[in-house]
Amino acid sequence: MDERSVFLISDGTGITAEILSHSLLTQFPQFEFSITAIPYVNTEERAELTAQKLFQAAAADGVEPLVFTTFADETLHDMVAEAPGAFFDFFEAFIGPLERVLGVPSSHTRGRTHGLVDVEQYTSRISAIDYTMQCDDGVNVVDYDVADLLLIGVSRSGKTPTCLYMALHYGLRAANYPLLEDDLDRGRLPDGLRARRENLFGLTIDPVRLQQIRQERRPNSRYARLSQCRREVQAAEALFKAERVSYLDVTSMSIEEISTTILDQRGLHRTFF
Amino acid sequence: MDERSVFLISDGTGITAEILSHSLLTQFPQFEFSITAIPYVNTEERAELTAQKLFQAAAADGVEPLVFTTFADETLHDMVAEAPGAFFDFFEAFIGPLERVLGVPSSHTRGRTHGLVDVEQYTSRISAIDYTMQCDDGVNVVDYDVADLLLIGVSRSGKTPTCLYMALHYGLRAANYPLLEDDLDRGRLPDGLRARRENLFGLTIDPVRLQQIRQERRPNSRYARLSQCRREVQAAEALFKAERVSYLDVTSMSIEEISTTILDQRGLHRTFF
Repeated sequence: MDERSVFLISDGTGITAEILSHSLLTQFPQFEFSITAIPYVNTEERAELTAQKLFQAAAADGVEPLVFTTFADETLHDMVAEAPGAFFDFFEAFIGPLERVLGVPSSHTRGRTHGLVDVEQYTSRISAIDYTMQCDDGVNVVDYDVADLLLIGVSRSGKTPTCLYMALHYGLRAANYPLLEDDLDRGRLPDGLRARRENLFGLTIDPVRLQQIRQERRPNSRYARLSQCRREVQAAEALFKAERVSYLDVTSMSIEEISTTILDQRGLHRTFF
Repeated sequence: MDERSVFLISDGTGITAEILSHSLLTQFPQFEFSITAIPYVNTEERAELTAQKLFQAAAADGVEPLVFTTFADETLHDMVAEAPGAFFDFFEAFIGPLERVLGVPSSHTRGRTHGLVDVEQYTSRISAIDYTMQCDDGVNVVDYDVADLLLIGVSRSGKTPTCLYMALHYGLRAANYPLLEDDLDRGRLPDGLRARRENLFGLTIDPVRLQQIRQERRPNSRYARLSQCRREVQAAEALFKAERVSYLDVTSMSIEEISTTILDQRGLHRTFF
């Protein structure tokens, strides 16, 4: 496989450059990319050192590295850009056109994207994370009154990571409740959930995949037996249907896909942090 | 304040469009942007409906909406782009130049960025999240052997959200341990932490800010008293110095800034999920 050095360089966190380059580089699966992130290049000294690293990589590889940059400070950008590299500057590509459309210059402020800009919004984000931690795995059912979303499903169907993602990135109070055998045998929603039916969303998963996941967690347990997984998944899906709870098969979905699909289906507003 | 409608449109999750547009729009603080995300525009029918929404917004606003798109499927993109809007296509801007630099065409595959592409990598990410949940708040000290990172600091200094971010986005096993009064009085690291000194990182915070945070959580408690916060922060910082643990003042930092600064200072490799 072809190898290429990639640098993500920013005077901020570098997260925007990271996400942009990740989106682009996944479209070239025939390459192996060796990625180095250099964030907080916010002094001339750091810019000099960064430029030196690019010179070194170009010399070692015999080919220019790919360089993805997001700089609020153009002087620092220009110092780095004197080094060899195929440069892709995110702001340069879009800020100009956006300024023309909006008819005003941009503020060129560093750290606005992933920094602590709006304290009130940030506090509500942290409080959503607190809530989600406290209402994980069926704990604190009494707090479901203030949930934005309540995920239900059998153990290891992906509820916890999805809730965390929703809290971290959309500031949602996302609780989750595992459907245990008692609940499944009863064939009806527990009382604490019935009262919050409008916030419920079910996750289901292919029993074979569930078996693999459980097997890693508790090898050779009854819990990880395929017949057990099949029975639980069947009962959970029957419960979702009987109680008319929307649900999603997450077998081949990432946390991001599960989260955005649920938000889309529930018409929940997306305010990304 | 000037208002503008913004649409984030994708045949995938729309997360890339969401993050990149957020980076750009924060540079125009004089506008109030009303944002609508339309993910999973992966059929001609969805593309038609999306185009109609743009026509409606343009008519209602009397000005073209801003439209940020990431489409793997060009036909669907082109259908949407027939509607009125100032279009910013992230792939279009960079994929061409990147193809020229790499000398190969891109794969144009949908859902590679935020989808479940590499099952092994995804499993290790989920297992990092599990670990971090299980080792939150000083629980399961015995599992610190396998931690990639151990955050320590007084209660409410931002350890938990930072650990969750590191697990979710960098697949790191990040545990955290709250320094309680007993630990602070003793003036030395608890034994379970001493043994893993190379993985420790301290968080500190301005006592006035800490007081505000604690006051929201437990109003008028001893825990939330300013004198108490001052004493704890002072003792924690003295402990970090005495034990030569690197630490960071997180008072005005976001979760993203704390995470990327620690990764940078520790030289931990960033593999973004």
